[in-house]
Amino acid sequence: MEMWKDLPGRVEINEVGPRDGFQAEDDFIPTDRKVELIDALSRTGVAAIQATSVVHPKAVPQLADAEEVMTRIERAPGVRYTVLVPNLRGAERAVPMHADGWELMLSVTDSHSISNANRSTEDALKGMEPVAALARENGVEAAGSMATALGCPFEGRVPFERVLYVAEAYRAMGVYRISVADTVGVADPRLVHEIMSGLAERLPDVKFGLHLHNTRGMALANVLAALGAGVTEFDSAVGGLGGCPFAPGATGNVSTEDLVHMLDQMGVETGVDLDAMLAVSREAREVVGHPLESAVLRAGKSGELHEAPRAQAFGGPR
Amino acid sequence: MEMWKDLPGRVEINEVGPRDGFQAEDDFIPTDRKVELIDALSRTGVAAIQATSVVHPKAVPQLADAEEVMTRIERAPGVRYTVLVPNLRGAERAVPMHADGWELMLSVTDSHSISNANRSTEDALKGMEPVAALARENGVEAAGSMATALGCPFEGRVPFERVLYVAEAYRAMGVYRISVADTVGVADPRLVHEIMSGLAERLPDVKFGLHLHNTRGMALANVLAALGAGVTEFDSAVGGLGGCPFAPGATGNVSTEDLVHMLDQMGVETGVDLDAMLAVSREAREVVGHPLESAVLRAGKSGELHEAPRAQAFGGPR
Repeated sequence: MEMWKDLPGRVEINEVGPRDGFQAEDDFIPTDRKVELIDALSRTGVAAIQATSVVHPKAVPQLADAEEVMTRIERAPGVRYTVLVPNLRGAERAVPMHADGWELMLSVTDSHSISNANRSTEDALKGMEPVAALARENGVEAAGSMATALGCPFEGRVPFERVLYVAEAYRAMGVYRISVADTVGVADPRLVHEIMSGLAERLPDVKFGLHLHNTRGMALANVLAALGAGVTEFDSAVGGLGGCPFAPGATGNVSTEDLVHMLDQMGVETGVDLDAMLAVSREAREVVGHPLESAVLRAGKSGELHEAPRAQAFGGPR
Repeated sequence: MEMWKDLPGRVEINEVGPRDGFQAEDDFIPTDRKVELIDALSRTGVAAIQATSVVHPKAVPQLADAEEVMTRIERAPGVRYTVLVPNLRGAERAVPMHADGWELMLSVTDSHSISNANRSTEDALKGMEPVAALARENGVEAAGSMATALGCPFEGRVPFERVLYVAEAYRAMGVYRISVADTVGVADPRLVHEIMSGLAERLPDVKFGLHLHNTRGMALANVLAALGAGVTEFDSAVGGLGGCPFAPGATGNVSTEDLVHMLDQMGVETGVDLDAMLAVSREAREVVGHPLESAVLRAGKSGELHEAPRAQAFGGPR
């Protein structure tokens, strides 16, 4: 099998902890802490940071300080700062923030779209057209997110044609960067490979990234499958921050440090300094005040050697 | 990429929880509970169960009841029952147990071998020759385990030549089934693919299986890489039981249910009934009295659908 020959040599990490993670916390994280964490993330080498969201503050009070966050963070050269934009009202709020990009967000399945945003996918797509136009007018790159593309908590598996339809609709409004989301962590490597290969084949001028949750332990296997399909953009959250309202006991986004650690080990470049990211993860753990779903944060890096202990008393292997 | 075309259609699961898992618990698990759990595992469809170990009871008191366990379990047809055999004294103890197989155990790296078993790898190999011979005399299949083959806590990465050397030594004593172990959970998919492909190429008459720990979250990615290298035998432990003395905060073996769940989703047959395995996992959780490292036990299966809730009050996507 020619599994490794075709792996990309470099991928880009889009850090989504400040948006997808902070909004999942029960408590409001003080703006000072948010700004500190985003600034620390800016120094890790990530390609992009989804810094906040202009969703209605009543819907997501945890991110009601979006304006202040975007004003106060120190933008590092080479890092793309984006905000999540759910609708035109949010987009109008986003214009003065001067983000590098907007991430438009909608669900590929109607049931999830209706339960989450009170509108069908079709209506959500129509609602995004003026948002994409406003982005263009303001010289902001509009990217699109496709929630539930890799599985829906209400409908299960999503036909490829449905995913393709939404991707084509995004493309028709000038969106050429699309994040394919496994919102509830149900995707398996074969599905990821099929969907990502299929999208790349059908829409070669669109850059498709992957947004994974580690709910069923498959996130890094899915990364591997996606690499094999030529995917070079991955969303992840420091410390595995983030939750999922419809999967009790579920874990959050794939942790940035676990992702970078695996890619480092495999010789796939990310530009991210793993030690710096682990330091931010420890900081994030203090800020949120609970253990994080990050294997490398718990266990340390693969390369860390231990001193050999003395021989055991009773010669039996354990 | 032809990633999927060559995947095996069926793999065998070797359940190691009763040995690798129970020995890692601080408390002695009562023999009754062990027998119940092994009998429950016998009904899940696993190909093999590593039921216990004949290591010296002073070294591993948790498995001091090996004889009683092997006598009292109800052996299901089609399931291979094995015991771990560390040395000749253990092998002599194992003969009357009438196991289907013995798993010979040694470390590929000297530092780990010395710290764990008070002898070099070379000495351990010499010590295994009479064990393999005794197995043959008694009509028992001798399999070999190669601890630290995919990484050593004291030496780091292990050269392929060293792994091959130990595999060849096993083969020379008539051992044609070898488990390649990532004892401390440091392997990455590229390494797994390289080592497993290399071994299969150099020793095509030996059946190589993989023994993974999920310490750094890469276990299922490593499974995927191994499938790509043609591996069809995997060790795993119900509930992810098992620990690692040299990696604080580390998780145990890859959980059988997480492994089966991913393979089910991918259409790779295991013969294991996932619901039955999840039931055993819940039972095991009660027996050990602490949470288990099992994503699917926590989050449920990918295919479980939820009822769509009513639309949210404030129309903003989360």
